[in-house]
Amino acid sequence: MFKTIGIITKPNDSVSEDTAIKLSEFLLTYHVDVVSGNKSIIQEADLIIVVGGDGSILSTARSFVDNNIPILGINLGRLGFLADVSLTGMFDIVSEVLDGKYIKEERCLLSCQIKQNNRILDNFLALNDVIIHRKEHLKMVEFDVYIDNKLVNNQRADGLIITTPTGSTAYALSSGGPIMHPGVNAIGLVSICPHTMSHRPLLIPGDSEVMIQVKDSDDGTIVSFDGQTSIVIKVGQDICVRQHSSFINLLHPKDYNYFEIIRSKLHWGHKL
Amino acid sequence: MFKTIGIITKPNDSVSEDTAIKLSEFLLTYHVDVVSGNKSIIQEADLIIVVGGDGSILSTARSFVDNNIPILGINLGRLGFLADVSLTGMFDIVSEVLDGKYIKEERCLLSCQIKQNNRILDNFLALNDVIIHRKEHLKMVEFDVYIDNKLVNNQRADGLIITTPTGSTAYALSSGGPIMHPGVNAIGLVSICPHTMSHRPLLIPGDSEVMIQVKDSDDGTIVSFDGQTSIVIKVGQDICVRQHSSFINLLHPKDYNYFEIIRSKLHWGHKL
Amino acid sequence: MFKTIGIITKPNDSVSEDTAIKLSEFLLTYHVDVVSGNKSIIQEADLIIVVGGDGSILSTARSFVDNNIPILGINLGRLGFLADVSLTGMFDIVSEVLDGKYIKEERCLLSCQIKQNNRILDNFLALNDVIIHRKEHLKMVEFDVYIDNKLVNNQRADGLIITTPTGSTAYALSSGGPIMHPGVNAIGLVSICPHTMSHRPLLIPGDSEVMIQVKDSDDGTIVSFDGQTSIVIKVGQDICVRQHSSFINLLHPKDYNYFEIIRSKLHWGHKL
Amino acid sequence: MFKTIGIITKPNDSVSEDTAIKLSEFLLTYHVDVVSGNKSIIQEADLIIVVGGDGSILSTARSFVDNNIPILGINLGRLGFLADVSLTGMFDIVSEVLDGKYIKEERCLLSCQIKQNNRILDNFLALNDVIIHRKEHLKMVEFDVYIDNKLVNNQRADGLIITTPTGSTAYALSSGGPIMHPGVNAIGLVSICPHTMSHRPLLIPGDSEVMIQVKDSDDGTIVSFDGQTSIVIKVGQDICVRQHSSFINLLHPKDYNYFEIIRSKLHWGHKL
Repeated sequence: MFKTIGIITKPNDSVSEDTAIKLSEFLLTYHVDVVSGNKSIIQEADLIIVVGGDGSILSTARSFVDNNIPILGINLGRLGFLADVSLTGMFDIVSEVLDGKYIKEERCLLSCQIKQNNRILDNFLALNDVIIHRKEHLKMVEFDVYIDNKLVNNQRADGLIITTPTGSTAYALSSGGPIMHPGVNAIGLVSICPHTMSHRPLLIPGDSEVMIQVKDSDDGTIVSFDGQTSIVIKVGQDICVRQHSSFINLLHPKDYNYFEIIRSKLHWGHKL
Repeated sequence: MFKTIGIITKPNDSVSEDTAIKLSEFLLTYHVDVVSGNKSIIQEADLIIVVGGDGSILSTARSFVDNNIPILGINLGRLGFLADVSLTGMFDIVSEVLDGKYIKEERCLLSCQIKQNNRILDNFLALNDVIIHRKEHLKMVEFDVYIDNKLVNNQRADGLIITTPTGSTAYALSSGGPIMHPGVNAIGLVSICPHTMSHRPLLIPGDSEVMIQVKDSDDGTIVSFDGQTSIVIKVGQDICVRQHSSFINLLHPKDYNYFEIIRSKLHWGHKL
Repeated sequence: MFKTIGIITKPNDSVSEDTAIKLSEFLLTYHVDVVSGNKSIIQEADLIIVVGGDGSILSTARSFVDNNIPILGINLGRLGFLADVSLTGMFDIVSEVLDGKYIKEERCLLSCQIKQNNRILDNFLALNDVIIHRKEHLKMVEFDVYIDNKLVNNQRADGLIITTPTGSTAYALSSGGPIMHPGVNAIGLVSICPHTMSHRPLLIPGDSEVMIQVKDSDDGTIVSFDGQTSIVIKVGQDICVRQHSSFINLLHPKDYNYFEIIRSKLHWGHKL
Repeated sequence: MFKTIGIITKPNDSVSEDTAIKLSEFLLTYHVDVVSGNKSIIQEADLIIVVGGDGSILSTARSFVDNNIPILGINLGRLGFLADVSLTGMFDIVSEVLDGKYIKEERCLLSCQIKQNNRILDNFLALNDVIIHRKEHLKMVEFDVYIDNKLVNNQRADGLIITTPTGSTAYALSSGGPIMHPGVNAIGLVSICPHTMSHRPLLIPGDSEVMIQVKDSDDGTIVSFDGQTSIVIKVGQDICVRQHSSFINLLHPKDYNYFEIIRSKLHWGHKL
């Protein structure tokens, strides 16, 4: 049973804030405490409700993955892949969740280390994907891909997406990657507009370590995390990506069906 | 240490038979017994050497998967994905294997049950793929896909490939599927020329059960196993596919490198 | 002004026949003669109305292309790419067409000659596509492609589609080909599941001659025309394809919009 | 017979400059005048020799397309699609060209007008492609596509490539576009990582006018020409693209074979 719920809103979004207020009032009638602010949530909350969209879930996941607090997502707009409670169904679903009626699902994150001479310079997380690309569009990036210290290939492409199953329905899908069910323990490597015609998306075991060595001689290569934060890579720095040691627990309504969401989002009912 | 080796040749192939004779003579100098014939191999062999190509490994794997005998493949032609010992390197590699210098790798198979009214009518195995298609080319097949009893979608396509990671570099690759490292515990579903433009290859966890219900009203739908054997499906029969309970152990030369084979076969060094 | 209209129905289809009867009665009130049967149509009709679907238009086009009679298509089912008059709008559209209110559009056909030792053995037509494939599914075909007597490449694939712009939204689209507006004067070559990973659809000028030499040593290769008729190719026979010298004139309702049909059939309004 | 030859070098490239000097000396022995500088070339040259690569041909084509001077390309590096005379074969090929032994081929360019309230603000040319994208990578652009004033669709994508047949083997190919023989009179529209799963490359007649209306509310959308020059599009400005009225004449060695270059660049000899 959840006793203290942390609510996270979408910054500068009045609909999100209004919804959060209504949700707080609703939760108080259930004798559940409501907290906000990262510090209070980490210390007190046993459930996080995100009032936003898939984007808000992504940033929440990166912030709280190591605190082992389950996350439920209220979607303010169109049905999301991650935030699957609609505004209209919000009160019904939340009360069911408080009654213990929900589906709990683990989702893995990627942990990305920037290394130089084997020293770790920095650490980043991603729930969807780590994307390596040039700052400016239309500039190609050249890089070597290593899996578990073995060379896979040298590539020239617009970029490289290293994706979790969660991210497989995001940017990687537009770039020609396959759909990976969240239960698949794998990491996907999907090149963006590769110059080698025989390149294909590559799936590797979930416990693999991916290492990317960028070959460009200037400092214009970028690494982006969930498309939300990004850093500049300097010459001689390596990008190392593996599954993060902690997982997030995503809560879904009790009648949640992954394939129903996929069908709906990809319009699979439609035929020529 | 291997004491009795079963040799399997390619039917009606004199090069394969000549090579098998030379290999037998070579093995006798190592004081290793050589047997042939499925029955003797099952009863006595602790290693199978296949003298053929990837196709010979596929049929050997289906025949011996439940007998827990490791398999080494000598390739008579171009480098294979599975049979990775060349004719010229055969004696050297085989003696290294006899010395215990090799890499052992598990490869999963698919088990396919044909069911009617929940009764199992027949059972088949596949190391690469189970392919559902119409007997005649250019005829579309319509089917429903279920994963763990949940509807994924209804499809009209030239066919459907259900593939292991091993099969991901075979027919599924030509149909637009991703490359799956053999260590990925997943099953791939790749449609052949799907009529719905938004279809994409789908990867599901290795312990999933796929069920295909063919919607055609005649008896012209075929299920093929590794492209080597096939059966006709009758109206009202379901096709159920899951990972087989036993694995095969494939032996590789001690310097085996999966990515090197992929690079070589897909010509990944070549750029525009 | 159209004075004599030939009506073509879908064989063994009672809806088509009933519709044709109603349409005949309607046309008689316009003092227009109605004929049926290929011979009468060729001798007398100055307009053909096809009561069926895209498939019926395909066969009508092949039969009457050299007689220079415009074709209007009534669609009995879902909106077609070619037969774009719906049952409900039939009488309105047909009276507009009789009043001269319509859009006339030329569509090219392909002419296919089967040659042996430079002798022409047989001649076929196709409005959509000429498809080369093996009789049985899952069997690969190997062939050389020549354009204007110059080698393009040697291919191993499930098959090869040689398509008109009209056929580009049919089977070629499922095989990864581009959409070609009917006004593009080009021929498309789209391989079905090619074994060479770097193959891409190829567009050549409309006045090119394509020649395919099949490399298989048995007689199991098929050439299909619009997926409706097909022949077996024997060893040593070449397949020569070029634009047919005559075009068909397809009539459309006066507010016809190619892109609206494409949008509707491909569900282009739908986003992730 | 060519009497005055303009030589164009690659800026800041000593190999290009050295080669140009050797070439000039060689040409003088043939009693041919050599000029350089755009003004002199326009006034005097009846042939342009570009000493660089495909990139140098692109900029030369845009600069001189309206002056009707044929262009020959010497390639300093790997075989190019456009600059197809190698350094080692340079003197032989150039003397053959001077003897009138060459193949002349027309290549069309795209003309791009930036319009606001139907006023033309600016004009640009492209031999390969006009590319619409966001300044920063990973930012999507939303736009409406019109062909001859008819809406094709609304798209959200990383970008849109409007390509000539010449550009079809450049960036458009990496984005999934088909190969278009230079003799095809068509314009290609290829979306970069489209968000709508059912999008496909679209080919339209060469005399079509493409109009793109960008839907973004800031001024961060870029239009690039041959990937070499680019401009920022402001809110309310339309991008209109059609074939340019003049063509360039590209000269090739007398044994030039388009398909041989494609085969070599795409490594079409290689099979799985």
